Amino acid sequence: MSEIRLPDALVEPDGGSIVLVVLDGVGGLPHAETGLTELEAARTPNLDALATESSLGMHSPVAPGITPGSGPGHLALFGYDPVETVVGRGALSALGVGFELEPGDLAVRLNLATLDSEGRVQDRRAGRPSDDEGRRVVKKLRDGITVPGGLELFLMHEKEHRAVLVLRGGDLSDRIQETDPQEEGVPALAPEPLTPEARETSRVLAGILNEVPRILSDEEQVTGVLARGFASYQGFPTVADRFGLRGVAVAGYPMYRGVARLVGMESAGDPESDEDAVALLESIFGGYDFHFLHFKAPDARGEDGDFDGKVRALEAVDAFIPRVRALEPDVLLVTGDHSTPASMRAHSWHAVPVLLHSRWARPTGAAFCEGVARGGDLGLVRGKDLMSLALAHAGRLRKFGA
Amino acid sequence: MSEIRLPDALVEPDGGSIVLVVLDGVGGLPHAETGLTELEAARTPNLDALATESSLGMHSPVAPGITPGSGPGHLALFGYDPVETVVGRGALSALGVGFELEPGDLAVRLNLATLDSEGRVQDRRAGRPSDDEGRRVVKKLRDGITVPGGLELFLMHEKEHRAVLVLRGGDLSDRIQETDPQEEGVPALAPEPLTPEARETSRVLAGILNEVPRILSDEEQVTGVLARGFASYQGFPTVADRFGLRGVAVAGYPMYRGVARLVGMESAGDPESDEDAVALLESIFGGYDFHFLHFKAPDARGEDGDFDGKVRALEAVDAFIPRVRALEPDVLLVTGDHSTPASMRAHSWHAVPVLLHSRWARPTGAAFCEGVARGGDLGLVRGKDLMSLALAHAGRLRKFGA
Repeated sequence: MSEIRLPDALVEPDGGSIVLVVLDGVGGLPHAETGLTELEAARTPNLDALATESSLGMHSPVAPGITPGSGPGHLALFGYDPVETVVGRGALSALGVGFELEPGDLAVRLNLATLDSEGRVQDRRAGRPSDDEGRRVVKKLRDGITVPGGLELFLMHEKEHRAVLVLRGGDLSDRIQETDPQEEGVPALAPEPLTPEARETSRVLAGILNEVPRILSDEEQVTGVLARGFASYQGFPTVADRFGLRGVAVAGYPMYRGVARLVGMESAGDPESDEDAVALLESIFGGYDFHFLHFKAPDARGEDGDFDGKVRALEAVDAFIPRVRALEPDVLLVTGDHSTPASMRAHSWHAVPVLLHSRWARPTGAAFCEGVARGGDLGLVRGKDLMSLALAHAGRLRKFGA
Repeated sequence: MSEIRLPDALVEPDGGSIVLVVLDGVGGLPHAETGLTELEAARTPNLDALATESSLGMHSPVAPGITPGSGPGHLALFGYDPVETVVGRGALSALGVGFELEPGDLAVRLNLATLDSEGRVQDRRAGRPSDDEGRRVVKKLRDGITVPGGLELFLMHEKEHRAVLVLRGGDLSDRIQETDPQEEGVPALAPEPLTPEARETSRVLAGILNEVPRILSDEEQVTGVLARGFASYQGFPTVADRFGLRGVAVAGYPMYRGVARLVGMESAGDPESDEDAVALLESIFGGYDFHFLHFKAPDARGEDGDFDGKVRALEAVDAFIPRVRALEPDVLLVTGDHSTPASMRAHSWHAVPVLLHSRWARPTGAAFCEGVARGGDLGLVRGKDLMSLALAHAGRLRKFGA
């Protein structure tokens, strides 16, 4: 009963190139009138043509019934078990603002809040300040707070009342009590240590939080902060370590570049549009083994509840497919990190269609959509298994056993 | 790298109502002449209409190739891994006679047997006594056996030569050697302790078994007992603990109420017919979150090898579906705990069709049967994953990660 980890134990040093195209939130639910999902309704001639030469299937990003956030959804697509590979809220927030976490860093989410002179919470979100206002206050805090020698403090505004703090250096623990009391009219809590090992971290955090009222003493709205979502990032094995892949992310949003960096992929840059992203992929193709190209719009329109907008977003991505095909990757995998049905205006647990183009495919259908993909050769697999399939089709996995 | 258990870690305190309709043994095999399974042959207009608005799929109750007993099959449907959640034979027998086990109880299966005056086994089943005869002898034993202070003894007849004994109190172990020698003409074995911790339990059981020959000394046929299937029941986390569900069982057979009680569900009562059971569900609907409605007949006819009888049993259940739909549960899940093909006259390992009705369904077909369900959106999942799917569709699970 030795513990062999697959596919890692079978990885070959060389092999074909892989492109993973993520249509964020691609999966949907039937429209009440037509009975068609967003992807079924969309005119996607390029994806459909690709489907005729591809293996099709569906994937459950985490497990049946589980709705993934963007972090777990993408970790699964990168071949990581998203339940084992836990990324705390603070770390995700840090990634979300494009901060490059290093192993050992402690990331903390901060809510800008209104506290009275006795330290009682009056408004847990400080009246939801504008982004400009939030940025201004966070800069003031950053300029005012000092930390003990040997430590580095990073403080970034996220959105409205949300900010993120990262501590680096020393032996930091995330076993700290959140200071947000979750109700108003009561005092903020202290960042107490939840284990003896967290005492020093608790002392440092208490010192930082104690400086806040003084720094913000001339403010009306934002007079304090509440700390939550403590997450110490310990580092994960990289896609190079696990799969022998030089990986690169081409994504317009910092969150997705951040998740890719967590597993050792490089970021190709900061494209300003999908057009830019495709051009960036074209310019760097050849220097890497595994290329992750991210399209955000289908998810965004799904979260807006905009069925037609999501259809158009999918059609817009379809128009880029010929340029991706023209790169002639050995494996072209098209899927999503989760479903975002417009009717739910949110991520969902529903299975996500998968298209895997390779010379070793077993084609079964002439369209890329739920209705055709669910009858495909790949069946319904877990998200993390798609990396094994991509590696196999790229000739990057040895036979298991003799 | 914390150990997160899904879906438990994502459960919301509130959400929609769930009805689980179990058609015991629903899955079948093709008839030699028509090529249709029992469910494919059955006229089930109500289930078929429901299917057009439901997600369909198949489930493997335990794992591919594994034929489940009723206990594991139902535990899987309640969201429990049936391999981790082991219920010993003795405990299942106790449940089967409707006995309410408590954590710490030791349950033991007894075979009524014929032993000669030297204690040698002459007939391991005492010539298979009638139920009346079995009941009479078990009552005699119950009246005659005494146990040490601090212990309680329960002794119930099960069927023919089978009985079940439950000991309660003290620190009881099930690491006891079975006394059935598995052959005739040799002496019954002693209930030896298999570990040092079992010594006291062994002493108590030996005392009980020593009294049997005296109590049965005037009997012809049943002159002794053989003890097997020792199972100490330690309690399982409840559906309330794990899933935040107030659960209720509506089942005519004590075995199924018993399995439901094992995981903390209440029993709504003891309906005398399927008609009664549906009326009982109607009367209690609204006071619970999770309602388990059990129909036994398809399995019973399957075990009889009665293909047509199983078809009729499925048609009879179909007629109750409109009354269940009329309750308007947020999630209506219809499936079985395993397959019982009439051609096999037994439970089997074959996958079981699943219908999940909810406003968030992805319908794919117009019938509830193997042939249509296997192409459905849910794919082929493990039995225990159906609870995650039901919870998700009922709005009872948070997103996993951000």
